[in-house]
Amino acid sequence: MILDILAIAAHRDDVEQTCGGTLLKMAERGYRTGILDLTRGEMGTRGSAEDREREAAEAARILKAAWRGALDIPDGRVENTWENKLKVARVLRELRPRVVILPYWKGRHPDHYTASTLGYEACFLAGLKKAVVSRQSSVVSEIGAPSIQQSACSGDAIASTGEDARLSTDINSADTLAPHRPFKIIYATLYYDVRPTFVVDITDQFEARFQSLMAYKTQFSDQEAGKDLFPAKREIRNRVEAMARFYGMLGGVEFAEPFLQKEVGLVDDLMMVPVKSI
Amino acid sequence: MILDILAIAAHRDDVEQTCGGTLLKMAERGYRTGILDLTRGEMGTRGSAEDREREAAEAARILKAAWRGALDIPDGRVENTWENKLKVARVLRELRPRVVILPYWKGRHPDHYTASTLGYEACFLAGLKKAVVSRQSSVVSEIGAPSIQQSACSGDAIASTGEDARLSTDINSADTLAPHRPFKIIYATLYYDVRPTFVVDITDQFEARFQSLMAYKTQFSDQEAGKDLFPAKREIRNRVEAMARFYGMLGGVEFAEPFLQKEVGLVDDLMMVPVKSI
Amino acid sequence: MILDILAIAAHRDDVEQTCGGTLLKMAERGYRTGILDLTRGEMGTRGSAEDREREAAEAARILKAAWRGALDIPDGRVENTWENKLKVARVLRELRPRVVILPYWKGRHPDHYTASTLGYEACFLAGLKKAVVSRQSSVVSEIGAPSIQQSACSGDAIASTGEDARLSTDINSADTLAPHRPFKIIYATLYYDVRPTFVVDITDQFEARFQSLMAYKTQFSDQEAGKDLFPAKREIRNRVEAMARFYGMLGGVEFAEPFLQKEVGLVDDLMMVPVKSI
Amino acid sequence: MILDILAIAAHRDDVEQTCGGTLLKMAERGYRTGILDLTRGEMGTRGSAEDREREAAEAARILKAAWRGALDIPDGRVENTWENKLKVARVLRELRPRVVILPYWKGRHPDHYTASTLGYEACFLAGLKKAVVSRQSSVVSEIGAPSIQQSACSGDAIASTGEDARLSTDINSADTLAPHRPFKIIYATLYYDVRPTFVVDITDQFEARFQSLMAYKTQFSDQEAGKDLFPAKREIRNRVEAMARFYGMLGGVEFAEPFLQKEVGLVDDLMMVPVKSI
Amino acid sequence: MILDILAIAAHRDDVEQTCGGTLLKMAERGYRTGILDLTRGEMGTRGSAEDREREAAEAARILKAAWRGALDIPDGRVENTWENKLKVARVLRELRPRVVILPYWKGRHPDHYTASTLGYEACFLAGLKKAVVSRQSSVVSEIGAPSIQQSACSGDAIASTGEDARLSTDINSADTLAPHRPFKIIYATLYYDVRPTFVVDITDQFEARFQSLMAYKTQFSDQEAGKDLFPAKREIRNRVEAMARFYGMLGGVEFAEPFLQKEVGLVDDLMMVPVKSI
Amino acid sequence: MILDILAIAAHRDDVEQTCGGTLLKMAERGYRTGILDLTRGEMGTRGSAEDREREAAEAARILKAAWRGALDIPDGRVENTWENKLKVARVLRELRPRVVILPYWKGRHPDHYTASTLGYEACFLAGLKKAVVSRQSSVVSEIGAPSIQQSACSGDAIASTGEDARLSTDINSADTLAPHRPFKIIYATLYYDVRPTFVVDITDQFEARFQSLMAYKTQFSDQEAGKDLFPAKREIRNRVEAMARFYGMLGGVEFAEPFLQKEVGLVDDLMMVPVKSI
Repeated sequence: MILDILAIAAHRDDVEQTCGGTLLKMAERGYRTGILDLTRGEMGTRGSAEDREREAAEAARILKAAWRGALDIPDGRVENTWENKLKVARVLRELRPRVVILPYWKGRHPDHYTASTLGYEACFLAGLKKAVVSRQSSVVSEIGAPSIQQSACSGDAIASTGEDARLSTDINSADTLAPHRPFKIIYATLYYDVRPTFVVDITDQFEARFQSLMAYKTQFSDQEAGKDLFPAKREIRNRVEAMARFYGMLGGVEFAEPFLQKEVGLVDDLMMVPVKSI
Repeated sequence: MILDILAIAAHRDDVEQTCGGTLLKMAERGYRTGILDLTRGEMGTRGSAEDREREAAEAARILKAAWRGALDIPDGRVENTWENKLKVARVLRELRPRVVILPYWKGRHPDHYTASTLGYEACFLAGLKKAVVSRQSSVVSEIGAPSIQQSACSGDAIASTGEDARLSTDINSADTLAPHRPFKIIYATLYYDVRPTFVVDITDQFEARFQSLMAYKTQFSDQEAGKDLFPAKREIRNRVEAMARFYGMLGGVEFAEPFLQKEVGLVDDLMMVPVKSI
Repeated sequence: MILDILAIAAHRDDVEQTCGGTLLKMAERGYRTGILDLTRGEMGTRGSAEDREREAAEAARILKAAWRGALDIPDGRVENTWENKLKVARVLRELRPRVVILPYWKGRHPDHYTASTLGYEACFLAGLKKAVVSRQSSVVSEIGAPSIQQSACSGDAIASTGEDARLSTDINSADTLAPHRPFKIIYATLYYDVRPTFVVDITDQFEARFQSLMAYKTQFSDQEAGKDLFPAKREIRNRVEAMARFYGMLGGVEFAEPFLQKEVGLVDDLMMVPVKSI
Repeated sequence: MILDILAIAAHRDDVEQTCGGTLLKMAERGYRTGILDLTRGEMGTRGSAEDREREAAEAARILKAAWRGALDIPDGRVENTWENKLKVARVLRELRPRVVILPYWKGRHPDHYTASTLGYEACFLAGLKKAVVSRQSSVVSEIGAPSIQQSACSGDAIASTGEDARLSTDINSADTLAPHRPFKIIYATLYYDVRPTFVVDITDQFEARFQSLMAYKTQFSDQEAGKDLFPAKREIRNRVEAMARFYGMLGGVEFAEPFLQKEVGLVDDLMMVPVKSI
Repeated sequence: MILDILAIAAHRDDVEQTCGGTLLKMAERGYRTGILDLTRGEMGTRGSAEDREREAAEAARILKAAWRGALDIPDGRVENTWENKLKVARVLRELRPRVVILPYWKGRHPDHYTASTLGYEACFLAGLKKAVVSRQSSVVSEIGAPSIQQSACSGDAIASTGEDARLSTDINSADTLAPHRPFKIIYATLYYDVRPTFVVDITDQFEARFQSLMAYKTQFSDQEAGKDLFPAKREIRNRVEAMARFYGMLGGVEFAEPFLQKEVGLVDDLMMVPVKSI
Repeated sequence: MILDILAIAAHRDDVEQTCGGTLLKMAERGYRTGILDLTRGEMGTRGSAEDREREAAEAARILKAAWRGALDIPDGRVENTWENKLKVARVLRELRPRVVILPYWKGRHPDHYTASTLGYEACFLAGLKKAVVSRQSSVVSEIGAPSIQQSACSGDAIASTGEDARLSTDINSADTLAPHRPFKIIYATLYYDVRPTFVVDITDQFEARFQSLMAYKTQFSDQEAGKDLFPAKREIRNRVEAMARFYGMLGGVEFAEPFLQKEVGLVDDLMMVPVKSI
């Protein structure tokens, strides 16, 4: 499986909240997108890791992701260790994305900002020619979302073709994986008050993106008696919509998702620079 | 004359130092570009306003600008007054550019940073529907670069077509000019230590841009006996090249010019975002 | 008329978009609030200055403002001149507010950011003991919203009592106005991407604040045939709501308005500091 | 023991230099305050860990702290490890403070800035419902300041009542501690050049706060022959006073301590916002 | 009179509060220093312009300034106009300082921050070769502090020598003044919360600097009956001392004054870079 | 061996790119300079660790460094661990530099920014009086550049004298090393877009500095057939020169290297402050 774009996040349901609309938009353009969740959500207040795996698979289907996997890093304890960097680097060498989306490097949840540094350093490590990353010890397949991965491998609409698999084989030796460094790393941020470098218009993807979040039924519905399900959902809807609309306004569109990049931009045609100045 | 892009600067030879390569690149893409110099350079240590007018026309020819004009604002005394805003707004309503390039809003020379604010507020004023800007009192024609303007009006390769002139007539009444607000305002900066929002690759335009600067013979050659012309030119060359190369490195190209914008960006396709991250 | 809080803005309908909910909330707490519009809106694309005066009076009624006036500064041409500073200072000495709300010092519209500096410098001038500001030449009464001002003076529910009028007389001599410097100056900002110092919860005032904006019928309804009134209104509603909800999320409430102050804060009781950290 | 406010710092005598006045002020308002020193000071140039324990107890008495403890993290080697996070989280679950004061996240001493991150991540961990933190393995009691803790437990003026102890028992099971996440986390900074979010007026507490610092006799007096005790003390006095006065000036009071928070503020009443603007 | 260093400020007694110690230190090193007050203090609450002129002369004597003058710009109304720029440029061309000290470009008092921009633009104007600044119309001599200026001209200890006067004559023609642009412009700031670029150790000058401030008897003593003179003075002393000590601590000395510069530094010898890092 | 200045970097050839000119300039002034490479370059795409050791020795000779060593930290895996801090602290206690140059704390390569934190914390640790750092376990000698170290020890032109060796012995006991904390820590940065605190003029050292970089033949020449050596070298030359010239322009010299420091500056004489303002 060779991907164009891989979003890495700490928890299942993170990408749905930060860059789900963008992932869907890119998939609709014909790119192969993927999601790597560093943990499996066993520390969540509601639901088990198994519940979340099913929900994550459903969300990935809605977002038309070609691949989704999870690592065995403990939920609530994402640490920027050498072992964790190797785990992520292995996935990067296997999937070989051109673009990697990471969480913003500041945030409320330590797992989020640590995932940002961990992901960045794994991108670096994956590209070091002399760094040997064993193929066998990959733990992704054990914890991935097999239904998606399989359908992807068996050639469904959003999956890679056999050529890519051969390419992958050619690039990598029997036991180790060939180096790969993503071309572009961008950062998605979930309502932390930072000015984005750019936003992506997700007006057409907004409803599906919201549905992908709602796929996490154990998280976003309230099973206890005495609670009214719909108001809670409406509150979430209101907040998600306000956020997307706020970033939309910054970019002159209805709904958008915000991103940061560390590099300066490169513009080819001044007449094509979007967003009205005045 | 209807323009696509108009660069506004305080002094003749300013745009040659900040965004000349970009203007040329855009002209080579088929856009009509123009240059508005707010002053005529009468305070320069070397040469007269007439010398600079001739040089500016030559530089405009090298940069393939479709139009170049100068206002009668005193050199060394660019002030953000209502009268000056009207003068600039009149030019904006006549030329109706989609993109306006202004100087950066900080700088060493007061004329530069004042030109930035003056240009911005003129863009705003030009777009106010109820602001009446008289056509007759325009002073541009008196101080413009007639040779260029005429050739432009007589329909040569880089000039506007008759349709545009008619359009201009249609839009504007006999005595006043129809409102026009540029879509995009960007800021060009000349080695002030600020991180640009984006750079424009001018590798292919770099030599011509340097020649446009050298067209200012009264400024960049040393006529006094006892001075060696070439070392001075070589020093200028070294500095101009180092600057363009430095900004080129930020964008992963050989030579570039830096720009800022106040808006956030809007990206349509993550796979197309340029500049390597890692 | 002595006020507790005075909001100064460039245009009628500005405060309704930035701090209307806060003004209403303060009025509901029993404070006397006022609005000074620097211009009368004659440059607006739709409607006349007279239309806007009527609308502003209605909006003030909805926001329970005890006073609203407008100066004769030309719309689209707010300049930070000595004369304009005197005009604003005169109002400040008459109304003697403890808190002044100004527009944020950056923005898209030159009138907005100039009003910020003009308002600040007028606050300073109003407090200079030796600065003589003549009572007679006040232009406020000529351009104010008489219906409001009169009702205020005749003692209706939101107006000041006679005691305040006497106090005002005592403080000021027959011909000049006694110095007054506001204690606190804060800045309200309308969706410019800056992190606020604090937000004010306007959950309970949000609907009325939206109605105060809708009172500007010439601005926010579309009278032309072939346009559907309601979708336009719904679009405005969506944007206003998204903004208020976004700032609400920053402060942990449903709807809020953002403000900046230049001073550091002073906290008396750590247990009372609001907004959850984690 | 249930606390209202807990200050966490790397070394004994840190809180006395950053937020001692604020802790005392809060205690005088009737809140129960506590101090957690991550290390025991064994690396200090002067005095032993036992000396510092006695001094810390005396300082806590002066600051009217209801509780003071120290962890067994090595002095000079505060690391942000999982084990250390568990140690701090255990204390947080036992003491259940609403407000936690951490050191600023930048600084000269690595222990200080690491304590900031460690403390933050421990606050997060302590609130994770599924994170099991064993009650038995707590090391606090071994290294705490027993005299204070006992007096606190035996119900003296500043200690918690028996009700709190029962509450603590109710919340926590026999072997593990119930989750607790502080509502508010603020950061105290010791003369690092950063603009504080707010300051706390400690004019009335300044002298006692200085005495709490002087309680560290091994640190702030000079036992060697040939040195004059008083000038050294006077020098410290001068510096401590200048710092408190400087931050006092920012807030318009005589002496103050500076704090940062990451959240925006939330203001209820504009007329109550302190600190004169102009 | 040729100066080495000229401090420009809006009001008499400003330099005494921001850079008086530095001016004295430089004078003690043998440099000729001067002070240009843009206004004459007629708006001050206490005392007349004549009182302040006498006090300013006394303060200048204490600070060993070789020259002090005042312009006729109205107090409380420092504006950045062409006329005011010419007035300051004339002084700069006459005194020809290498270093100019301006107020910081932000501040509470509009006169202060406007003086910063005005002073900067006057430095620029003074250096334009083709800008003709008439000698005759200089208003400085009318409003200067004659007693100081005369003693300086008659060659006392702190004054310039006759050679400089001749040089001045040589440089300037009968009617106009030769161009002069200061080499270095730095900014002094009075307790505004900004991090300085560098501080100057004024430990040895601190007492004299304080006396120069106390020379403004109309400002810093309280003549009204029922007020105790000394506590007020002690309060001022406390604040001035705290400020100087705070900035001293940043630089590792006892008392210091803070400055900003816009340029990057240039260091010749790494072993000589002062201020301990750790 | 006692050094004046020690540059610490992650990889052999790092200092040649960031501060090599400055090191040479300082050596030419008579200071003893040294270079500590944290890793030995075994992960580099071209060449072995042994190749790089020879090249590093040659580069050190060109830069006239009195000492160069490398630690056994794995290339591509510089981690901020206690063990690594001890390794660096041991070197610091042995070489006792007054000035330490570290990499900038942000960057593209994780080894670079981690080396910055690691180096800083090692400086802190080296100065803790009670931190015992064993002399025996030093790994520097095993991996150092013996040829340089020996020549330095045998007293050649750039080496320390016997007095220093005795001093070193006196300071340190038989088995442990005496504490040492550098006075000054500065940060060198390689074309990351940050504004430097100061630059160092390396116009006279530029050519030698470039030669020191070219000494890394395995890195900067292309041995494969079919590649032209000189264009590649010319490209490197162009980039290195552009960078040095850009920073030179900021400081008003031809070539310069940029540095940051965290402290404010301390200026003794305003007339000596370099870099023209205007």
